[in-house]
Amino acid sequence: MTQKASVTAAVLVIGDEILSGRTKDANSGYIADYLAKIGIDLREMRVVGDIAAEIVDAVNALRQRYDYVFTTGGIGPTHDDITADAVAAAFGVPISEDPRALRLLLERMKPAELNEARRRMARVPHGAELVENDISKAPGFWIGNVIVMAGVPAIMQSMLDRVAPKLATGAKVVARTIEAGALFEGTYAAGLGEVAAKNPELSIGSYPSFHDGGFHNQIVVRGKDAAKVAAAAEAIEALLSRLVNERV
Amino acid sequence: MTQKASVTAAVLVIGDEILSGRTKDANSGYIADYLAKIGIDLREMRVVGDIAAEIVDAVNALRQRYDYVFTTGGIGPTHDDITADAVAAAFGVPISEDPRALRLLLERMKPAELNEARRRMARVPHGAELVENDISKAPGFWIGNVIVMAGVPAIMQSMLDRVAPKLATGAKVVARTIEAGALFEGTYAAGLGEVAAKNPELSIGSYPSFHDGGFHNQIVVRGKDAAKVAAAAEAIEALLSRLVNERV
Repeated sequence: MTQKASVTAAVLVIGDEILSGRTKDANSGYIADYLAKIGIDLREMRVVGDIAAEIVDAVNALRQRYDYVFTTGGIGPTHDDITADAVAAAFGVPISEDPRALRLLLERMKPAELNEARRRMARVPHGAELVENDISKAPGFWIGNVIVMAGVPAIMQSMLDRVAPKLATGAKVVARTIEAGALFEGTYAAGLGEVAAKNPELSIGSYPSFHDGGFHNQIVVRGKDAAKVAAAAEAIEALLSRLVNERV
Repeated sequence: MTQKASVTAAVLVIGDEILSGRTKDANSGYIADYLAKIGIDLREMRVVGDIAAEIVDAVNALRQRYDYVFTTGGIGPTHDDITADAVAAAFGVPISEDPRALRLLLERMKPAELNEARRRMARVPHGAELVENDISKAPGFWIGNVIVMAGVPAIMQSMLDRVAPKLATGAKVVARTIEAGALFEGTYAAGLGEVAAKNPELSIGSYPSFHDGGFHNQIVVRGKDAAKVAAAAEAIEALLSRLVNERV
């Protein structure tokens, strides 16, 4: 919608199953990729369990610091789904069954199937807008700067697609990856630090991975000014070539 | 080492590359599994970028709340590796080159290779113990209740193996997973909520996944009293059988 120089966000993943190790969270990585592509800077992620006070504290800490907070998890029909109530408590607003949400649920199920547990999925904090999805019909919602989404990846992704066109976005980050191959980080660290010091507006990172018995390093240059990113990447490539030649 | 009723922990992942989506964090899921197995309750995870103030704030918030804080990332030789300095600042202690750490580095490299960048990896906050690893020799460290580990998964895992025998641990959590198959969450939610209400000391969660065009649900019962976990799991299995028969 609107364009600002920088729009920031946090992700809050809610669920005991992530903390216990049972479920490996893929949502936060998906959202990180997604926000980078549309020009929103993800600045923090948190994972908390299904404990109301923890969710309230995290929502309030994050919504005051960042332009948007995206939550995942805890909006289903079972007793452990407490996100909607916790978000209402964080905002200090009442929560009740939303007729719009009930209508959506009834698109998928017969009135006789809409038992008390399923009606829980229509509970929405007052003042929130619904966030629909194409998979389950049960909506998430958007209140203040907090966007509350499902934990099931396919549903979360559908909700994010619905929300994205309405988000304020900033300049997109351009990234260049430079393969350092088998050159050690310690060999290029000084030179890389000089390039980074000359370009304080860029994020320049060195990322080692270890496999097949050796280190394989990549350097990533990220920033919103494509020309500066390209110039820094070239300076780093020249540095690496020089170091490789020195070794020979 | 010692055994307490409950030992808690948080994970703090440090690195711009996770927030930008470039790297999908696998360390926090690995640590979650690992801690569950040895009897430590992981209560929170956070991801912050390579920004000193953010790391200091997160370390201080988490170390006051939990028995242990495990950090990953930011202890290499390049300019973006600022974790050791940030942790020293969080504890308000000086940081300098540690002779023990230098000795470890020299096991892997010649004195001539130990340039200024590599010497950075020997900077350790005063009062910290080293955490060695079998891969790179460059150590992490343990100060107060904060354990600072590498971001490269193989190195982090080796450090965790070194630290684990020295950690206080509590009773291990026993988990039982019950397949709900194609039964909808909304169908069993009321009955499951009753079992959960009768067992407040257990964590009972319902986890839907969506694939092949349909939902497939699992229920997980977790707790430290194996007999209670087994009894609750049996009650849930009986509930599901009853609901399946009602549908036929």
